Amino acid sequence: MTNVLIVYATDYQNTLKMAQSIAAGVQSVPDCAAILKAAETATYDDLIAADAVILGSPVHMGSADWRIKKFIDSCCSGAWMKDAMIGKVGAVFATGSGFGNAGGGCELTMLGLLNNLAELGMIIIPLPKSTPGYTTGGLQWGPYGRSANPKMDPVGVTEDMLGVARHHGIHIARAAKALKGVKIFG
Amino acid sequence: MTNVLIVYATDYQNTLKMAQSIAAGVQSVPDCAAILKAAETATYDDLIAADAVILGSPVHMGSADWRIKKFIDSCCSGAWMKDAMIGKVGAVFATGSGFGNAGGGCELTMLGLLNNLAELGMIIIPLPKSTPGYTTGGLQWGPYGRSANPKMDPVGVTEDMLGVARHHGIHIARAAKALKGVKIFG
Amino acid sequence: MTNVLIVYATDYQNTLKMAQSIAAGVQSVPDCAAILKAAETATYDDLIAADAVILGSPVHMGSADWRIKKFIDSCCSGAWMKDAMIGKVGAVFATGSGFGNAGGGCELTMLGLLNNLAELGMIIIPLPKSTPGYTTGGLQWGPYGRSANPKMDPVGVTEDMLGVARHHGIHIARAAKALKGVKIFG
Amino acid sequence: MTNVLIVYATDYQNTLKMAQSIAAGVQSVPDCAAILKAAETATYDDLIAADAVILGSPVHMGSADWRIKKFIDSCCSGAWMKDAMIGKVGAVFATGSGFGNAGGGCELTMLGLLNNLAELGMIIIPLPKSTPGYTTGGLQWGPYGRSANPKMDPVGVTEDMLGVARHHGIHIARAAKALKGVKIFG
Repeated sequence: MTNVLIVYATDYQNTLKMAQSIAAGVQSVPDCAAILKAAETATYDDLIAADAVILGSPVHMGSADWRIKKFIDSCCSGAWMKDAMIGKVGAVFATGSGFGNAGGGCELTMLGLLNNLAELGMIIIPLPKSTPGYTTGGLQWGPYGRSANPKMDPVGVTEDMLGVARHHGIHIARAAKALKGVKIFG
Repeated sequence: MTNVLIVYATDYQNTLKMAQSIAAGVQSVPDCAAILKAAETATYDDLIAADAVILGSPVHMGSADWRIKKFIDSCCSGAWMKDAMIGKVGAVFATGSGFGNAGGGCELTMLGLLNNLAELGMIIIPLPKSTPGYTTGGLQWGPYGRSANPKMDPVGVTEDMLGVARHHGIHIARAAKALKGVKIFG
Repeated sequence: MTNVLIVYATDYQNTLKMAQSIAAGVQSVPDCAAILKAAETATYDDLIAADAVILGSPVHMGSADWRIKKFIDSCCSGAWMKDAMIGKVGAVFATGSGFGNAGGGCELTMLGLLNNLAELGMIIIPLPKSTPGYTTGGLQWGPYGRSANPKMDPVGVTEDMLGVARHHGIHIARAAKALKGVKIFG
Repeated sequence: MTNVLIVYATDYQNTLKMAQSIAAGVQSVPDCAAILKAAETATYDDLIAADAVILGSPVHMGSADWRIKKFIDSCCSGAWMKDAMIGKVGAVFATGSGFGNAGGGCELTMLGLLNNLAELGMIIIPLPKSTPGYTTGGLQWGPYGRSANPKMDPVGVTEDMLGVARHHGIHIARAAKALKGVKIFG
């Protein structure tokens, strides 16, 4: 079994919905299991048991929610020390209100999380523009669930966005499966 | 006179239009002059004569147009060597096709350019969300002229976007004027 | 009086020492006061009372300590809503163990924090390479106190690094003073 | 045969030496071939023929050399249009003078290039800290050949740095081989 751990923080359930869609994508790949955890409850042991890790967060002031960062500082740093995540697969996603026509802050939010995964020595899966729904739910670094319009009225994440998230889950599960047990580093 | 140099690259005149709007904003501030230059024609002497520098580019593959980078490598690096730009004012803007609902790449494009300006020791003026038109033409780092819709059909930059650009010009001219001759560094 | 708020997180007192040096620099500028607060104790009212804000953090897994992010999510986001920080002055600094010859993660740590300040509409003061001590304690985005050698042996922050921090404090105090009451935005 | 394309820009041959070391690492993996090209001579056809692409550049003003960007704008954008690089493997490296104790600009240089590769939908191989020589030649995003000391005296890239580059080549060749023909996306 290939295990994909999805760690998220959520305020209004939009990030949770995206995480659930990713999980559904993962589960649709044979012999792959999704483990869905809120950042507050995810543990070091969850990391060790995972073949892939996906981090997702709302955009807060242009970067990830502090609860995700607390998980990274508390749990991931121990795994970093022990080189325990090297060669596993990593990916990210985000949600945001979309204030500003270009979703200000979503790129740096994803990038900050990817940097955390790169520190762990994880192989990074981006989101190709060929992914169905990319034009409304995608960004090169991962799915972006824009849950408010440019005027900040909450509109929720759309089916298109959830569809992109589902595909992201499929991609990551496949990559984790293909790379499991393969010696890349060291 | 406070001189604001605007250096841009343009393919379909959208970045040029944004640059012209910024220039109009600059010119509307008393005792401020805008100098508008395509990256291919901007020189080291333009930099030295400027009190503020604004760099603008289309998003190409997630970063600034190579012509802007050539200007930076060729002209700005000499000014870096001589500490000639320290304490001057810097800012950026971008245009892009908006492929992906969040304008993928526009944040990193602006950030890359701001990094070039930070290397020069320049004081950076962002774009506050209180700027009129921000919801469709703004991003925390500067104006973003989204010249195509999510499906990549070219639609040009809107009046709102040009208005944001104009305000950015006003902000930068005011900042350059306020800081001119003031000893901040060294 | 021009008030400069310094908010830091610290594990082994290196970031605290850097913060204290910045504070000393601020205090050396006539009519400028430094307010030094650990992230856990800094408040929304501290932000409102400040003319400049400096954020400092150790590098943890390539980004800022979660306690700083909690402060940003909890206190700065309220100020963002109210446009309360627009036009004030912002800056950053970091400390790190220096694992990897290039201090891996320090740039993105500072950049993530600057992004938070840009969202607030704050004017950003970088660190010019002309600053005394820059070659060992500086980075374009701010002072970097490298408190361990490349092999991760703790060596503490050096006098040179603390000197760079002190200069950064001076720069920021001067900029905040020069810009206080000047209408730049809106 | 698995083909790994290495595209570099070089001023004083340090980046070239790093590129050659990466190539040697690639060639040491059975059934893998390295194709080494200066940015000025690399072509669209080189991209299409490659199973993995590695971009390397000196740090100029905090970002990659304009010749690399010209290659990206001219050749990679065509491949982006056609979704021709999706699912291939990508990685980066950099060299720099090391001005500033933390090699200011090297992180953003690598990150900018990785962003270009992510736009292409490429799977990204970072550099794990377990790599021999990492403490002097590595960064989470890739090898960093620091060719001058903090005072900017040219000292060239060391054997340790070239060793890290060699290992990076091995890692990327193995990843490209493992992922070749595997359906991850779409």
